[in-house]
Amino acid sequence: MPSAAGRGQGQDRRPENEDSSAADDYAKERYGVSSMIQSQEKPDRVLVRIKDLTVEKADEEVWVRGRIHTSRAKGKQCFLVLRQQQFNIQALVAVGQHASKQMVKFAANVSSPPILSAVATAAASRPSEAAAAPCLKTGGKCQIAKFAGDAEIELVNGDSGVYSNHGSFRTITSVLFSVNLYLCDCLVSITKESIVDIEGVVRKAHQKIGGCTQQDVELHVQRIYVISSAEPRLPLQLDDAVRPEVEGEEDGRATVNQDTRLDNRIIDLRTSTSQAIFCLQSGICQLFRETLIRKGFVEIQTPKIISAASEGGANVFTVSYFKTSAYLAQSPQLYKQMCICADFEKVFCVGPVFRAEDSNTHRHLTEFVGLDIEMAFNYHYHEVVDEIADTLVQIFKGLQERFQTEIQTVSKQFPCEPFKFLEPTLRLEYREGVAMLREAGVEMGDEEDLSTPNEKLLGRLVKEKYDTDFYILDKYPLAVRPFYTMPDPANPKTSNSYDMFMRGEEILSGAQRIHDPQLLTERAKHHGIDLEKIKAYIDSFRFGAPPHAGGGIGLERVTMLYLGLHNVRQTSMFPRDPKRLTP
Amino acid sequence: MPSAAGRGQGQDRRPENEDSSAADDYAKERYGVSSMIQSQEKPDRVLVRIKDLTVEKADEEVWVRGRIHTSRAKGKQCFLVLRQQQFNIQALVAVGQHASKQMVKFAANVSSPPILSAVATAAASRPSEAAAAPCLKTGGKCQIAKFAGDAEIELVNGDSGVYSNHGSFRTITSVLFSVNLYLCDCLVSITKESIVDIEGVVRKAHQKIGGCTQQDVELHVQRIYVISSAEPRLPLQLDDAVRPEVEGEEDGRATVNQDTRLDNRIIDLRTSTSQAIFCLQSGICQLFRETLIRKGFVEIQTPKIISAASEGGANVFTVSYFKTSAYLAQSPQLYKQMCICADFEKVFCVGPVFRAEDSNTHRHLTEFVGLDIEMAFNYHYHEVVDEIADTLVQIFKGLQERFQTEIQTVSKQFPCEPFKFLEPTLRLEYREGVAMLREAGVEMGDEEDLSTPNEKLLGRLVKEKYDTDFYILDKYPLAVRPFYTMPDPANPKTSNSYDMFMRGEEILSGAQRIHDPQLLTERAKHHGIDLEKIKAYIDSFRFGAPPHAGGGIGLERVTMLYLGLHNVRQTSMFPRDPKRLTP
Repeated sequence: MPSAAGRGQGQDRRPENEDSSAADDYAKERYGVSSMIQSQEKPDRVLVRIKDLTVEKADEEVWVRGRIHTSRAKGKQCFLVLRQQQFNIQALVAVGQHASKQMVKFAANVSSPPILSAVATAAASRPSEAAAAPCLKTGGKCQIAKFAGDAEIELVNGDSGVYSNHGSFRTITSVLFSVNLYLCDCLVSITKESIVDIEGVVRKAHQKIGGCTQQDVELHVQRIYVISSAEPRLPLQLDDAVRPEVEGEEDGRATVNQDTRLDNRIIDLRTSTSQAIFCLQSGICQLFRETLIRKGFVEIQTPKIISAASEGGANVFTVSYFKTSAYLAQSPQLYKQMCICADFEKVFCVGPVFRAEDSNTHRHLTEFVGLDIEMAFNYHYHEVVDEIADTLVQIFKGLQERFQTEIQTVSKQFPCEPFKFLEPTLRLEYREGVAMLREAGVEMGDEEDLSTPNEKLLGRLVKEKYDTDFYILDKYPLAVRPFYTMPDPANPKTSNSYDMFMRGEEILSGAQRIHDPQLLTERAKHHGIDLEKIKAYIDSFRFGAPPHAGGGIGLERVTMLYLGLHNVRQTSMFPRDPKRLTP
Repeated sequence: MPSAAGRGQGQDRRPENEDSSAADDYAKERYGVSSMIQSQEKPDRVLVRIKDLTVEKADEEVWVRGRIHTSRAKGKQCFLVLRQQQFNIQALVAVGQHASKQMVKFAANVSSPPILSAVATAAASRPSEAAAAPCLKTGGKCQIAKFAGDAEIELVNGDSGVYSNHGSFRTITSVLFSVNLYLCDCLVSITKESIVDIEGVVRKAHQKIGGCTQQDVELHVQRIYVISSAEPRLPLQLDDAVRPEVEGEEDGRATVNQDTRLDNRIIDLRTSTSQAIFCLQSGICQLFRETLIRKGFVEIQTPKIISAASEGGANVFTVSYFKTSAYLAQSPQLYKQMCICADFEKVFCVGPVFRAEDSNTHRHLTEFVGLDIEMAFNYHYHEVVDEIADTLVQIFKGLQERFQTEIQTVSKQFPCEPFKFLEPTLRLEYREGVAMLREAGVEMGDEEDLSTPNEKLLGRLVKEKYDTDFYILDKYPLAVRPFYTMPDPANPKTSNSYDMFMRGEEILSGAQRIHDPQLLTERAKHHGIDLEKIKAYIDSFRFGAPPHAGGGIGLERVTMLYLGLHNVRQTSMFPRDPKRLTP
């Protein structure tokens, strides 16, 4: 371990300091704020990953980069929790050979008001020095012009003007930090969520360290430098953001509401739960494509800006396109089908899907990610249904095998039964589903669509009877499906169409599509659709089209339901709904 | 091989026929038009892939589904070329034990006018029969009401009205086809591009069959049924569409212009060249992700509808969003960077990117697919440059290994030198590139950006000197890069930014990003950007941000340049430019 390298990257520009407390500080080179990393150097220092810090590394000297998750001063010691994605470790700064009391103070996270008063004191005691001090960040002159309580500091930077319009504490923190550092090192402390480089020795812990993922070791800090400092007031606390709601309610401890989370998504995404959710979601995409490529599918890219709204024009976003108007694709279906007509045989695509639906529910987004499949078949659309169902089963199995850590992490905050499925997948006919619902007391017609509560009830009934959270409902009534759905040749009231469900909620809708231009025309007229508007669609089938079927899966829904979460906004990094367009 | 199964799926509904020519036809059950595949049955017939028909299968009886690529009658024989994606085989229908002369005639592709006169004759000779004939497609009654020359047939279907408004031949072909079939089987023939099921015996060819991929075998047809018929007049001929331009010019043979191709993209995509291009493109995506996942990257999904135009508002498409306006993302950059600030460390995404630029060039699209990378680094942005360059190298190597067939197929139509690259990738500094250009006689300033002709010239100079089609140009002048580009600490006029080139054209632009909110503010002001508009962007860095860099790759450009093609519309399935929004 290159401990001798010392600071390496990013010399801090602390000037020669006559201040007695700094002069007394035998550890003053062992801590501080690094200057911004601008790729000045290429040191050969190795940074070790926190998850790799185990008892095997005991007594090794290592460099680690991580975030200050928490910090707690206790006499001559300061206990830090250093975090890296889903993993964290305790780090100890203790007055002794490597650390001075100033260094411990520097490492200790003091909340913002004490910093302010410290600055005030400093500024007040040496105003002339402050005025002359070069700004550590810009090299320009800067001056503390005014201090009047908690949130009314004003800084003047004569030559850049960058700091001239600050009325609030938040926007000037880092400048304060730097000036502050110059005025009096010992008054600065590292804020939570700052990124630091630590050199330390890995020591076996005397007892398990609760609350850390690395329970058997701790890091004895020898050097600590701030790489990027966080403002002292966080819009939300990570510990609150991972607290199970029940616990919050029972103990009266804080949890974080959804809008606060989403408004401050970059902080919320740092929680172990969010990290796990989105690593798992990345895994779903990966498993989806892996499986389909193994099955001989080709990935296609379909346009999102389209000239006509294919399904009649409702719920579609309009785009200004040079001197004309265009629309955002509500689904890649037409293009998938065109690829089938163009002999690609088995295609899939992963991409955004746009729905201008004014629905404010737990499972609707105006923009979501569609995992879409379309496939030519030989004789029967069940060939396609089987491929899709198997693809989902491969995803479920892959998640179990490769993402157990993530599943466990999420379940700490959102406890939930493990996801169950059968192989081969259970396939019920719609009429069987209706019969089960009627037996449970639901009144509904043969050709009536499933309401959301009935879907959920049926999910529970299926789970009780077949012990599976995943099943297919086949042969929907023709009347409740889109015009391009192939009628069932054996029954004029049903169709060759299907939905798939996870934990009682729909995640995929699909069908055999009509590949004959005349039958398609006939069905479109039956649905009262303007033939002129779908001419291009119908014309796609005029030059020989193989029988085909497909479906679209909502990525966010699959992630949500697999993990047993309750809102699709938890599984969309930057969700879009009728009321939310930011961040 | 289940030859005994006979027709299996799709009984044709030919009624008992008193017509003497049909009565004479000893093969009449061995050919015809299948009724539409509506998933009536699940026969266990195996359909063999054309690419698997080799001499090892000689004398086996097989079923094959394919398209009629060409058809040529010659006395008592008809030679078909049956196509499946990039592969094709010759099939022979010969009068004999299995085929009658009527069957040969059925298989022979006769162009449309003869079909028309045949129908006219039939309709004229037995109008009463035609009136009473059930429509084979719908089961309803239909009638040939009027025939007056080549393009003025009119059909009346009493009960559906589907066929009532036809003025042109094209729209009613399949109906005619069915009625026709009833009136007189022997008058029907299979059109080019129709999909057929053939039962036949694989026979070793006496000599190599030129023009087919399966040169050593042919298929002796025993049964042939139309699964989906194509209209007789194709908007373009596939053989013309794969003809190398030089050949067309020299021999005066037809080639197909780009607009005709794109207007009829589903036909154009069936050519072996298009099939190969898009299979290879699917491979690029797959290799990109495979490599990055192996390197520990996480796939993210970023929103395409955004509330503010992040780079100042030029060239951005506006979307109506409920009662407000929104924009289409010009790049996922802000979101990638937010993910870095949210500790995902290494992220990538594949998705559409929108540019409302009124550029009509060979390499600009208004919607293209971005392969985007963003990564936190430890000390130097070259850590990121190396990862990106290695990712591209892994793609190039993977294509060479896995897509040799596709590369060869494309080069038949578009001959080109194989793509060359070095390991590790050549990295030149911008000033070195400028020096090479000056040596070649170009006059340009140190801080001037590269023009497109200069980029291409530099590509040629680099190829001559270093023998590589892929290289990196590093350390661009600060003045020509966006405000968020990290300045070079060693030289105020340069920056930590880079472009990557394939065959002298830019495929990636990237940089170390400024991760410090103050420096970012300063640079934005320097560029005259309204700080209010980028507040959210700047605020992303206020809670601790690791140093990071990244870049975006244009998928269509990589495909184009790897294959040595000359227009990005060839590598976009459904290209969008200022003048094209369809199909």
